[in-house]
Amino acid sequence: MKPVSEPVKQRLYAVLEGGGADAASRAVGVSLMTLIVLNVLSVVLETVESLQVAYGGLFRAFEVFSVVVFSAEYVLRMWSCTADERYARPVWGRLRFMLGPLALVDLAAILPFYLPLVMRLDLRVMRAVRLVRLFRILKMGRYSEALGVFRKIFWSKKEELLITVFAAGVMLVLVSSLMFFIENEAQPKVFSSIPAAMWWGVATLTTVGYGDIYPITTAGKILGTLSAVFGIGMFALPAGILGSAFVEEMHRRREKSKICPHCGKEIEE
Amino acid sequence: MKPVSEPVKQRLYAVLEGGGADAASRAVGVSLMTLIVLNVLSVVLETVESLQVAYGGLFRAFEVFSVVVFSAEYVLRMWSCTADERYARPVWGRLRFMLGPLALVDLAAILPFYLPLVMRLDLRVMRAVRLVRLFRILKMGRYSEALGVFRKIFWSKKEELLITVFAAGVMLVLVSSLMFFIENEAQPKVFSSIPAAMWWGVATLTTVGYGDIYPITTAGKILGTLSAVFGIGMFALPAGILGSAFVEEMHRRREKSKICPHCGKEIEE
Amino acid sequence: MKPVSEPVKQRLYAVLEGGGADAASRAVGVSLMTLIVLNVLSVVLETVESLQVAYGGLFRAFEVFSVVVFSAEYVLRMWSCTADERYARPVWGRLRFMLGPLALVDLAAILPFYLPLVMRLDLRVMRAVRLVRLFRILKMGRYSEALGVFRKIFWSKKEELLITVFAAGVMLVLVSSLMFFIENEAQPKVFSSIPAAMWWGVATLTTVGYGDIYPITTAGKILGTLSAVFGIGMFALPAGILGSAFVEEMHRRREKSKICPHCGKEIEE
Amino acid sequence: MKPVSEPVKQRLYAVLEGGGADAASRAVGVSLMTLIVLNVLSVVLETVESLQVAYGGLFRAFEVFSVVVFSAEYVLRMWSCTADERYARPVWGRLRFMLGPLALVDLAAILPFYLPLVMRLDLRVMRAVRLVRLFRILKMGRYSEALGVFRKIFWSKKEELLITVFAAGVMLVLVSSLMFFIENEAQPKVFSSIPAAMWWGVATLTTVGYGDIYPITTAGKILGTLSAVFGIGMFALPAGILGSAFVEEMHRRREKSKICPHCGKEIEE
Repeated sequence: MKPVSEPVKQRLYAVLEGGGADAASRAVGVSLMTLIVLNVLSVVLETVESLQVAYGGLFRAFEVFSVVVFSAEYVLRMWSCTADERYARPVWGRLRFMLGPLALVDLAAILPFYLPLVMRLDLRVMRAVRLVRLFRILKMGRYSEALGVFRKIFWSKKEELLITVFAAGVMLVLVSSLMFFIENEAQPKVFSSIPAAMWWGVATLTTVGYGDIYPITTAGKILGTLSAVFGIGMFALPAGILGSAFVEEMHRRREKSKICPHCGKEIEE
Repeated sequence: MKPVSEPVKQRLYAVLEGGGADAASRAVGVSLMTLIVLNVLSVVLETVESLQVAYGGLFRAFEVFSVVVFSAEYVLRMWSCTADERYARPVWGRLRFMLGPLALVDLAAILPFYLPLVMRLDLRVMRAVRLVRLFRILKMGRYSEALGVFRKIFWSKKEELLITVFAAGVMLVLVSSLMFFIENEAQPKVFSSIPAAMWWGVATLTTVGYGDIYPITTAGKILGTLSAVFGIGMFALPAGILGSAFVEEMHRRREKSKICPHCGKEIEE
Repeated sequence: MKPVSEPVKQRLYAVLEGGGADAASRAVGVSLMTLIVLNVLSVVLETVESLQVAYGGLFRAFEVFSVVVFSAEYVLRMWSCTADERYARPVWGRLRFMLGPLALVDLAAILPFYLPLVMRLDLRVMRAVRLVRLFRILKMGRYSEALGVFRKIFWSKKEELLITVFAAGVMLVLVSSLMFFIENEAQPKVFSSIPAAMWWGVATLTTVGYGDIYPITTAGKILGTLSAVFGIGMFALPAGILGSAFVEEMHRRREKSKICPHCGKEIEE
Repeated sequence: MKPVSEPVKQRLYAVLEGGGADAASRAVGVSLMTLIVLNVLSVVLETVESLQVAYGGLFRAFEVFSVVVFSAEYVLRMWSCTADERYARPVWGRLRFMLGPLALVDLAAILPFYLPLVMRLDLRVMRAVRLVRLFRILKMGRYSEALGVFRKIFWSKKEELLITVFAAGVMLVLVSSLMFFIENEAQPKVFSSIPAAMWWGVATLTTVGYGDIYPITTAGKILGTLSAVFGIGMFALPAGILGSAFVEEMHRRREKSKICPHCGKEIEE
């Protein structure tokens, strides 16, 4: 029986995992991508009460349909993965495949559906479980180059990001503590503690400025001014680092993706 | 009769479409540009009730005057376009000319005026029609190099913009859903659904921070802090990409516009 | 008598206008700079009622002292300017000197003081006149290199700044008009006209977000999101252009200011 | 007795000050770093009343423990510093060591604890003293490279930062004074003085926009728009300067930290 199914399995594995260039792979990829986007949209819209009341049945039906598709996808991936020599051993190979990050995301995408069937969940857990469905968005990682670019950038700039986040944190603690000391007397309810003042610090140094907390004393306003003028630069650094890294990376990809007109392969420089 | 009008037609076409360097072309260009700016100003100010009450007649008169000029411009463009060999055939050539993007904008600039004369419109449509006049601003595209620069930049960076907007969207959905889950209990009216939480997400990640919606629980504030520190970078990327592209493009234009001192033509490098 | 005062005049002119490197010039420059800073501080603090009540006499005395010094400075400049061959003719030379931008600023710095002595001013004009004293800050232009750097940058990037400001303006008009059309029905008081909606547009696209005006309908929030994500880039461009121009300019100055160790002159590269 | 303790002293000095690569130095460094972070956390959380009520004893105990450790560290540093030839003289050497910036920070980290034991402090001073403990965060400067990077950047760009801060200050004064003049009549309570208007100016030009103060007149809104469009660039300059300097510095460090595979030393290029 095995020899019969082997070519089917290999073809299936190539279609599902290859992200290949042939029509079938592309059709499967686009279909799954579309389904994921619709799923995210559905989870988001489901929380709007008026839509839930009006289209609750539709949402539920779509959820069942999605889980059926994603479950089938998962089972087929499990079955076909032995076509890859890395996972060739029927049990251990499949287990190793299951523990890969992408396969775990695939599992997490369907598990929340089956959980309530297996055990009783109270309402709060139920809501959390429903939300976990949103992380189906991470299944996109398989098809989306965009998320890959960002993962790579974060990784290559991790040192710079760590240093800036650390320095920003030190600045936040110092500035917020001072502000707490200055404003606490005038606004004991608002600047009730250093953590409360840190919420002011975050709103100010990121320039979000909701307006729920701000200094009212002259000393507090002077400190607020100094914090803003110097601190905003500190909090803007991660953005600048990511930005320049992204531009560099996109440039590198363009350079790389020059395809040789003779052999059809990419020309590395 | 045709041979008589031909040189007139060619001259007119050159003046209207050439955007040429001779005095007449420039005068026509500047006049139309001024009229467009005044038109936009008029549409904007007309919506201020006190001005509408005081100067309603003036606004109406200016509108009629503008439409007369723009209509004349449109008719003359239609008539003279056959001077261009691309649109030389009297009927099909003119039709092709009419369907060009700039000619469509010209048509859209005058149509709203004639519509109520031809058919009855209810009040809401009437208001929309009046607003459409604002898109006369797009007629500037013919004369303004600035809009051309931006069109080119958007086009050349479309890949980077798409990726960043997509990644920002993914981040927005994840962050807002988490925030909804955290804050919904404490502020059921404000964080009533994920779309509502997304409005918070947009206000925070763009650092606009109107202050109509923000977290009040400790967990929510911690999530808000993390979202702001990391997410602002993501939302600031499109700005950074457009900015560097714009600087590059302006640099390229300057290089290009070096004029040969002997022949008066631009020197391409 | 003239031959006697001539060397004095030349020395005085060099001290006042040279911004030279000798001790006297530097002392005069620093003194005047300090006086200007104290003046600005005084005008600013004078408007705080409690300080005005407590130290009104001091403010007045300092004002009189400042005007005496600035008047003396002005008169001495007028007298000594003929030492410069460009302004050598006693009457016409002095007139030409008086009409230079820096001399006009000097005049504007003292005129507001003498005006009320010459003619009756009503209270509102009086307040305006008092405020004009603040423009003494521009006298710094003579001594401050910083303002010179910015003037040069603004000038060299005027084309880019104009284009971006124009494009930002077009975007602001389009976005605000649409928002007016969408929100006017739900918030007729807040989004009462397109100019009112433009105030929203400015607050949003600059990310200031005071929170006095924002959309509340779903359509308005979607438009607000799109405006923010794409428009912020547009409004951030001038900052980016100025920033990179400033860094370039500072770099150029450093390169330039390499002084030859033998002749003491700058080495141009 | 001295010859016996000498090697111990030298070893201790190396461990405490060397920041060396051997296991003991690293263990001491990591332990002290952790203790500092926990200290900062403790000071921050202590100000939350509910935590103070619940875990007050724990906070106090941890404070005593920390001071014991930091005091021991300080005493050991004092004792061992004579191992360094720069501080070799028992009294004068130790005094010079004590007056170094890092040793002063170490002293400031423990002094607030001993102060109330020595003299009576009123409540307000007591609170200030408690806050000073936060500056233990600066002890990190010894171990953290991140703070060193920032110190270096600030120093190398001090000229650019000074110029931009000065220019931003001039702009702030001019814009705020004008706004005070325009809005004072309509909002005498809010725009009560130029300093009050400067708080508006800071909130606007940094784009924080708390929403506690904003113009309501048409003239004020127009000035606000112009200030925002042009001024934000000015206030964003320090961020841009710091950002590019940081990227440069990190790049330089990477280049530098190439280690020679033969001799184990860094290769300078």
